[in-house]
Amino acid sequence: MNGPTLEISLGALTRNYSLLASKHAKGSCAAVVKANAYGLGVAEVSKALHAAGCREFFVATLDEALELRAILPDVPIYVFHGARKGEGKEFASQNLIPILNSLEQLEHWNKKQPFALHIDSGMTRLGVDVEEALKLETFPGLELVISHLASANKQDHPMNAQQLQVFRKARAHFKAAAASFANSSGVFLGPDYHFDLLRPGCSLYGISPTSAHANPMEHVATLSAPVLQIRTLTRDHTVSYGALATAKKGSTLATVEVGYADGFQRHLTSKAFGYAHGVKLPVLGRVTMDMVIMDISALPPQHRTIDLRVNFICKEQPVDVLAKAAGTIGYEIFTGMGRRVARTYRQG
Amino acid sequence: MNGPTLEISLGALTRNYSLLASKHAKGSCAAVVKANAYGLGVAEVSKALHAAGCREFFVATLDEALELRAILPDVPIYVFHGARKGEGKEFASQNLIPILNSLEQLEHWNKKQPFALHIDSGMTRLGVDVEEALKLETFPGLELVISHLASANKQDHPMNAQQLQVFRKARAHFKAAAASFANSSGVFLGPDYHFDLLRPGCSLYGISPTSAHANPMEHVATLSAPVLQIRTLTRDHTVSYGALATAKKGSTLATVEVGYADGFQRHLTSKAFGYAHGVKLPVLGRVTMDMVIMDISALPPQHRTIDLRVNFICKEQPVDVLAKAAGTIGYEIFTGMGRRVARTYRQG
Repeated sequence: MNGPTLEISLGALTRNYSLLASKHAKGSCAAVVKANAYGLGVAEVSKALHAAGCREFFVATLDEALELRAILPDVPIYVFHGARKGEGKEFASQNLIPILNSLEQLEHWNKKQPFALHIDSGMTRLGVDVEEALKLETFPGLELVISHLASANKQDHPMNAQQLQVFRKARAHFKAAAASFANSSGVFLGPDYHFDLLRPGCSLYGISPTSAHANPMEHVATLSAPVLQIRTLTRDHTVSYGALATAKKGSTLATVEVGYADGFQRHLTSKAFGYAHGVKLPVLGRVTMDMVIMDISALPPQHRTIDLRVNFICKEQPVDVLAKAAGTIGYEIFTGMGRRVARTYRQG
Repeated sequence: MNGPTLEISLGALTRNYSLLASKHAKGSCAAVVKANAYGLGVAEVSKALHAAGCREFFVATLDEALELRAILPDVPIYVFHGARKGEGKEFASQNLIPILNSLEQLEHWNKKQPFALHIDSGMTRLGVDVEEALKLETFPGLELVISHLASANKQDHPMNAQQLQVFRKARAHFKAAAASFANSSGVFLGPDYHFDLLRPGCSLYGISPTSAHANPMEHVATLSAPVLQIRTLTRDHTVSYGALATAKKGSTLATVEVGYADGFQRHLTSKAFGYAHGVKLPVLGRVTMDMVIMDISALPPQHRTIDLRVNFICKEQPVDVLAKAAGTIGYEIFTGMGRRVARTYRQG
């Protein structure tokens, strides 16, 4: 591989799935594979999860659902963004289940055709207001009611219990339907939050679902990039755009083939590190579109060679750590991986 | 179109090309189309530029060059990242020109086969150190020498003149080769910086190449996204993850189908605006993976409908303005546009 790669361990992915499913009393656990399975590749990820026993999948949009249907012909696929007016036939023909979000979406849906309903319990993003929902009749096609937690990564946030109370009211109203409430963080809030179906996303991919304790998930995806050029400086040099950094005479620099066009955020300028042969190496100066410059002087001389690769997401530096350096969360790092980043897969 | 779209005006693109080419005494102007033409779509962009008279193209990697060769069979294609050991045959068979960056890359290249040479004039990213370059012989295959400016967007930065002086020395040494120095910002530093071939990138796509005066480039790409749900609040609501924002009773909110997985950066949380019907509308709270929530109360009631689309990059809000709100530059916004963002093209 000559460019940046994201190597995905399907073994770690499926072990994460099994751990999450084991938290539910009946082992009932779906997978959220929206946004190209959080950037990791929806085809390989979904097939591996299916082989590991996952039987229900969630995506964001109709387009994503159609893509996933071509990969997994038989599983229930729920579509978070619901169905727009006129899309009922396409949902029916591909056996897709919209999660209707509003009275407006409900109005245009044939309520005998399978659907889910999103109750807004406090996120104020998607969903029918709970007071409106309690006025609705129950519908023959209604298979699942869901809601979404807004602050579940903080276990002691008072919103969690408030949202739970709201969702319980709605769920009691739609008795015939199953209920799903817990995203990854919700899984770790305990059985009260589990209902009939867990639906984790980020934690499958190794992102920490909770700030309360150490990450219980296994590392899944490793980002690495090759070196393009190595030089040992014969005088001091300013480095990269705007000459923000200075490297000293005698230091060894490597230009590494990953940049913000690959999703290595420009906010990582002068803040990021990479690892090679177990050694922590700093990025110097501006992250550029296609490259970063690193000080590799700390590496033993025999490793300062043109065939070196540097890891940026790895066991030494989980995606959450890289994300924090960029002022964001691991979800954005993974979903932001660009098209030049080759996704590779291994079973182990 | 049901999801987010980036609508590219090929007319504006090619008028930008013509303006840039007109700055050069002989009209000699290439185009940098790396990173999928800065996210805008390398196939349509390159074909349009070629039709407008552009006859030389620059990309970052061999993979990008192969992609472009399939689009434009006859033009010279320069590859910024050069050629690795063993890649000579592939470059030759597709008639691609590597820009060799180091003595190491030179060592592995057949110097009778066409190539370019990158001289490091102060960027300390890629290129042969100028002192080393002056010791080299000239080579029959050497067609072009280039260097890259580190601070050219600031017209009065002292580095510009220093880099120019260094590049002139190198250029004088390799007399038989042509010379290229000016990126977009360099074009606007004046004729001293122009040499034989301009090679703008960002300015083609409407990004401002200079901080010295108003953007001389035409707006090219418009990012818009559809509304998924509209609600008028019957009580105060906290909004989105972490309940960072509060919306007041009586306000009208729209959930809009663009999020950080689409390249609408999470750093835009509570900082971004969109435009609809000429009205400026704020994003409320956290940008999420697939959606943002906006306060659309300022819109006249007849426009607060489910078929509303909101513009995020547009004439009212150029990409540079959105980028600044995210703490970055327009280049990263364009190259970060995700795979769900449908690129559409119009001639006008």
